[in-house]
Amino acid sequence: MSLNKERRIGRLAVMMLLDDDKERTLEIVKELGWTTCTGKVGSMEASKVVAAIETAARKNEIVKTGVYREGHALYHAIIEALHGVTRGQVQLGSVLRTVGLSFAIVRGEPYDSSEEGEWIAVSLYGTIGAPMKGAEHETIGLGINHI
Amino acid sequence: MSLNKERRIGRLAVMMLLDDDKERTLEIVKELGWTTCTGKVGSMEASKVVAAIETAARKNEIVKTGVYREGHALYHAIIEALHGVTRGQVQLGSVLRTVGLSFAIVRGEPYDSSEEGEWIAVSLYGTIGAPMKGAEHETIGLGINHI
Amino acid sequence: MSLNKERRIGRLAVMMLLDDDKERTLEIVKELGWTTCTGKVGSMEASKVVAAIETAARKNEIVKTGVYREGHALYHAIIEALHGVTRGQVQLGSVLRTVGLSFAIVRGEPYDSSEEGEWIAVSLYGTIGAPMKGAEHETIGLGINHI
Amino acid sequence: MSLNKERRIGRLAVMMLLDDDKERTLEIVKELGWTTCTGKVGSMEASKVVAAIETAARKNEIVKTGVYREGHALYHAIIEALHGVTRGQVQLGSVLRTVGLSFAIVRGEPYDSSEEGEWIAVSLYGTIGAPMKGAEHETIGLGINHI
Amino acid sequence: MSLNKERRIGRLAVMMLLDDDKERTLEIVKELGWTTCTGKVGSMEASKVVAAIETAARKNEIVKTGVYREGHALYHAIIEALHGVTRGQVQLGSVLRTVGLSFAIVRGEPYDSSEEGEWIAVSLYGTIGAPMKGAEHETIGLGINHI
Amino acid sequence: MSLNKERRIGRLAVMMLLDDDKERTLEIVKELGWTTCTGKVGSMEASKVVAAIETAARKNEIVKTGVYREGHALYHAIIEALHGVTRGQVQLGSVLRTVGLSFAIVRGEPYDSSEEGEWIAVSLYGTIGAPMKGAEHETIGLGINHI
Ligand SMILES: [Mg+2]
Ligand SMILES: [Mg+2]
Ligand SMILES: [Mg+2]
Ligand SMILES: [Mg+2]
Ligand SMILES: [Mg+2]
Ligand SMILES: [Mg+2]
Repeated sequence: MSLNKERRIGRLAVMMLLDDDKERTLEIVKELGWTTCTGKVGSMEASKVVAAIETAARKNEIVKTGVYREGHALYHAIIEALHGVTRGQVQLGSVLRTVGLSFAIVRGEPYDSSEEGEWIAVSLYGTIGAPMKGAEHETIGLGINHI
Repeated sequence: MSLNKERRIGRLAVMMLLDDDKERTLEIVKELGWTTCTGKVGSMEASKVVAAIETAARKNEIVKTGVYREGHALYHAIIEALHGVTRGQVQLGSVLRTVGLSFAIVRGEPYDSSEEGEWIAVSLYGTIGAPMKGAEHETIGLGINHI
Repeated sequence: MSLNKERRIGRLAVMMLLDDDKERTLEIVKELGWTTCTGKVGSMEASKVVAAIETAARKNEIVKTGVYREGHALYHAIIEALHGVTRGQVQLGSVLRTVGLSFAIVRGEPYDSSEEGEWIAVSLYGTIGAPMKGAEHETIGLGINHI
Repeated sequence: MSLNKERRIGRLAVMMLLDDDKERTLEIVKELGWTTCTGKVGSMEASKVVAAIETAARKNEIVKTGVYREGHALYHAIIEALHGVTRGQVQLGSVLRTVGLSFAIVRGEPYDSSEEGEWIAVSLYGTIGAPMKGAEHETIGLGINHI
Repeated sequence: MSLNKERRIGRLAVMMLLDDDKERTLEIVKELGWTTCTGKVGSMEASKVVAAIETAARKNEIVKTGVYREGHALYHAIIEALHGVTRGQVQLGSVLRTVGLSFAIVRGEPYDSSEEGEWIAVSLYGTIGAPMKGAEHETIGLGINHI
Repeated sequence: MSLNKERRIGRLAVMMLLDDDKERTLEIVKELGWTTCTGKVGSMEASKVVAAIETAARKNEIVKTGVYREGHALYHAIIEALHGVTRGQVQLGSVLRTVGLSFAIVRGEPYDSSEEGEWIAVSLYGTIGAPMKGAEHETIGLGINHI
C-alpha cells in the first residue's frame, strides 16, 4: 500500500500554489489523469474559506454535487488544512485576524495499489494576520482524505 | 511593513523540502544572506521531533546557543508547524501514530522595512500514519515567528 | 463511592434519546425519583444549543433559576456534551456546519453512597453536517457533572 | 442522500453498548447485512484504546487488513469517538485519568442512495476518572466516517 | 448571587502565590473560615502536577478522601488551571517542555448568597520552558469550580 | 539567561491587577524603567478583548504602531493570556458566555543577561460566565513573549 513517489498528492497540491512554474505542476497532475483546481479567498470568516473551496470543488467537478460521501471527504480535508493555517484554534475574525489564501484541490490515486482508490488533497497557502495591511505572515495547510 | 515577494520566508522554507531542485532554493536563501539548514526525523514522540529541530538549529548556528530569546522564538515556530502536521492534537504515539518528516529552518528578513528585523520559519513535510509500513499519508506544517 | 448499575445517569440520559420505547426509560428515571426533560434544537450557532438546553432545564425546574452554582454545573455539562458532538472545535456555523439535535437532561443520585449527592447528565443526539439537506451524519455527546 | 431512519448506523452502534437487550440490536444490524463487533478495553493510555479497536476491526474482518484506505477511515472514526470520551484533550494517563470502555464497530450503508456507499461507526461507552476504584463517571463517544 | 468583593476566591488563591507578604493573604483566608494549602511541584509530566495537587488537597483535608464528588470538583479545577499554564495543549514533556510551579488550593464561599455554597480555586504560578536551566518564562493558571 | 527575581515581568503584570495597592506595583515597574498600562474591557466577543488590548498598547506606546514585529509579539501574548481565561476553546459568545476583564501590559527586560532583550507580558483578570448578572466566576490569564 505504499505511497508512490511520483504521485505524492499532497506535495503536488502544495506545489500548485508555491511553484514558480505552476503550469509544470498542473501538467504533472493532468498527465496522471487526476482532477484539480485552484482559487483564491480572503476573509475574516473561516466559514467563507470553507465555502469558497467547496464551491470550487463542485464547479470544477472534483467532487460530485449531491453525493454526501464526497462532500464529507472534502469537508474534513478542508478542516484539516485549516488547522495548519490557524495553528491552535480554527478561528479568524473571532480572534481578530484575517487570511488571504490561495487554495488547490487535487483528486487522484497516490498509492501503488489500486485497492487504495482515490484520495483528495486540499492545500492552502497565503498570509494570516491583523486586519491591517502588511501586518501578516505566511501560513500553510494541507488536508488529505480518502474519497 | 509589507512582506517582500522575493523574500517569502515561509514559501522558501517549504520549497527547501518540496522542490525537485533543492539546490536552487538553497541558492536563493544564501543569496539573500540568510541562514538555513535541513534535516530528517522519524518518531512516535513529538518531543523527539522538537529536539531534532532544536539541535539542528543550534548546531548550524541558526539560533544562538544559550540565548533563551532565540530558543523561545524557535520553540513556538516548531510547535506551530506541528499543528499543521497533527491537525488537532499535537500528539503522535499517544494516539498511535508516527511521523517520518523532513524539516527546514530558515532565518532572515522577509519584510521590506528593516525595522521588521529577523524572522524564523520552520517547515515540516513527510508522512503521518499508523506504525505500519505504508499506512500513512502526507502532512505539512509551517511555523513563523519574529526572532 | 461506586456507580450504581441501576442508576447509570449517563446511560439513562442517552437512552432518553435513542430508545425506541422512550416511555420505558422515562419511567425508570421517574421511579428513581429523579428529574428529567427532553427537547430539540437545530442551529448553526452553538450558543443557541446552549441556550435551548439551559432554558429547558430552568423551565422544567431541573436546575434552580437564580442559583449560579446550579447553572455552572449545567453549563459545563453542556459544553462537555458539545465536545462529543463537534469532535475537535466547539464550532458550528463558523466552520460551515449545522446541527439538528435532540437533548435530554437528567438529574439524580447515581452513586451508592449518599455522600456523593446529586449529579447532572446532558445528552445530545442528532445530525451534524453541511447546511444542505441530507449532507449530514449522526453525532452524540454526553456531559456529566456534580451539582 | 438522506439518512435512512431504519439504518441510523450511529444509533445502532451506541445501542450495541447501551441496550439491555443487546441481542436485539445485533439482530437488526445483521438483518441489514452489515458487519459489526464489540469489545472492551481499560487503560490509562489512549494508544491502547485505539489499538484494541483497530485489532478487533481487523480480526472480525470489518476492515480489510493491509488496505490503508480502510484503516484510515477507521482511525479517524476512533479519534472522533475519543473526543466525546475525553471532552477537550485526547489524553488519559498524561492528565492522570483512566478509562474502562466498551466499544462497538458497525459498518454498513446508512443512506437511501446506494451512491453514498459504506460508512463506519465507532461507539465508546464506559467510565472515565481517577486511577482509583469508583472515582469515575460515565462517558460516551461516537465517530462516523465514509469507508 | 453576586461575587463578594472581600471573598474573591480566585484572587486570594493567586495572591497566596504572588504576594510578597504571603502571611497576610493566608490570614485573610483563615479569617474567612476557609481552608487552604500551598505546595510546589516541578515536572515534565502533567500527571505529576495533577497528582501533587490532589495529594496536597487530601492531606490538608481541603477535599474529603473517598468522596468522588469532591475529587471530581478538584480535578476539573486543576485541569482548568493547567490550561492557563500550557496555553493550547495540556502537554509538557511530550512537547519537550517542563514546569516549576507553586500551587495554592482555596476552598470557601465566595458568593453573598449562602445558597451558592462552597467553591474551590486552584492557582498555579511558576515557570515553563525547555528542559535547560534558565530557558523559561513565567506562567499562571486558575481553575474554579463549585464543590 | 536566568530570570531575575526582582524583574519577574509576569508576576508584575498580574500584580498590576490584583494588588490592593496598585500604585506600589506601578512604581516598581516604573523604577525598572519599563513601560506599562492597564485597562478594562467587557464583551461577549473575544475579538473585542483583543482589540481593546492592542489599542491600549499602541496608544500608550508600549508597542510601536506600524511595526508588525511588535504587533505580532503582542498578539500572541494576548492569545496566550486568553487561553487561561477561556480554558479550552478561545470562545465567548459563541458558547454563550461573557467576560468582564481588567488587563495590564508590561514591557521590559526580565532576564539578567542583556542579550535576552525585551519581553512583553499581558495579564487578564476578571469574571467569566453566563450573560446574566452574577452568574460568573473569576478567571485569569497571562501571556509572555519576546519582543
Ligand atoms: Mg488522516
Ligand atoms: Mg503568528
Ligand atoms: Mg468530569
Ligand atoms: Mg464527519
Ligand atoms: Mg466554570
Ligand atoms: Mg512561550
